[in-house]
Amino acid sequence: MRGLAGPVMVEVFTVATRDAKQCLDITASVDAIVRRSGAASGLCHVMVLHATAAIAINENDDPNIGVDLLRALDQAVPDHDGWLHDQIDNNAHAHIKAAIVGPSETIPIEKGELVLGRWQGIMLLEFDGPRPQRRVAVRILRDG
Amino acid sequence: MRGLAGPVMVEVFTVATRDAKQCLDITASVDAIVRRSGAASGLCHVMVLHATAAIAINENDDPNIGVDLLRALDQAVPDHDGWLHDQIDNNAHAHIKAAIVGPSETIPIEKGELVLGRWQGIMLLEFDGPRPQRRVAVRILRDG
Amino acid sequence: MRGLAGPVMVEVFTVATRDAKQCLDITASVDAIVRRSGAASGLCHVMVLHATAAIAINENDDPNIGVDLLRALDQAVPDHDGWLHDQIDNNAHAHIKAAIVGPSETIPIEKGELVLGRWQGIMLLEFDGPRPQRRVAVRILRDG
Repeated sequence: MRGLAGPVMVEVFTVATRDAKQCLDITASVDAIVRRSGAASGLCHVMVLHATAAIAINENDDPNIGVDLLRALDQAVPDHDGWLHDQIDNNAHAHIKAAIVGPSETIPIEKGELVLGRWQGIMLLEFDGPRPQRRVAVRILRDG
Repeated sequence: MRGLAGPVMVEVFTVATRDAKQCLDITASVDAIVRRSGAASGLCHVMVLHATAAIAINENDDPNIGVDLLRALDQAVPDHDGWLHDQIDNNAHAHIKAAIVGPSETIPIEKGELVLGRWQGIMLLEFDGPRPQRRVAVRILRDG
Repeated sequence: MRGLAGPVMVEVFTVATRDAKQCLDITASVDAIVRRSGAASGLCHVMVLHATAAIAINENDDPNIGVDLLRALDQAVPDHDGWLHDQIDNNAHAHIKAAIVGPSETIPIEKGELVLGRWQGIMLLEFDGPRPQRRVAVRILRDG
């Protein structure tokens, strides 16, 4: 039994997006932070610090899943549909999708590694790109 | 390095909603609890304790984003569409939206403050109002 | 005041699903793990370790809410709609729904019990069943 150990902090990394809508696998970046932290056990919280992007967890082996996901969201939330916010910024659809999918995911850490299923990866969903810098905050709360 | 300090508890505050569907910015209420806790570092979990409301994170500067979000959810999940639960309570659409958006969000705390992007605020989404009291539970897990 | 105590670990239980799409109440299973842990206070993280299922929180008293929820998701994301991933695995709709609803929920623990509203239960949503074993990871981060 012991108290929490080591430096505690939010680590922020950035991702460049190249398309208006894009699904990027950021699992390796998050995994590197977990390993560098030395945390053996706890929870890892991953959050995109923008209101027109989201974090999701899904399969990363077939990249077409990301393509399908973006199209399904487009069908449910058309780019332009008389959205009031479009009068200001023309990206209402991106805000709506970001709010529905959500900005963060939490993943357990055990034996120093993220606990994910065989087909689960961590995805950044860009809804209003391209952007040179999307900021992702990773916060580990450890108890081992 | 030290163990967890200070009183640990779930703090619950209430919000009154005035419309059938409404998006309310609750960032200031959550922020006040974080400051009062004295937590320098950790995670803050915010959860609405009802099955016909949700918590989302998005822009709060243009209130029309909330209006657009509620309409997009209405278009995807019509108020009445032969939902079976409507035979009992007539608010199936509210339960469905609450399940999809989700009841909670988790936000890092650093240097005693919530880590949110410039355009991110914490929103309570009311889907079955108006209600005099919507309960929101805030739980801080601190390690500094 | 004290440090984190007791064994820390991810506990995994399995659920069998019997339908292609199904909403199962897993609250009792999660609750049993919380009680067995002896944690008085903290956060409980519940995550399904698959990319074609999700965890949601909603009412469990009227099971038709789950039926309505699954149909609403079907209407927003049709089973087959030219999804690219269907060329490989024919279950793109399940991946899309899983990404939108999300694989996990976090719930506070206080006085040794899950903090849930009167009408909130923890649901596993099966989108690509039936499956003999869906794995659910429960991780408690305690501070009391």
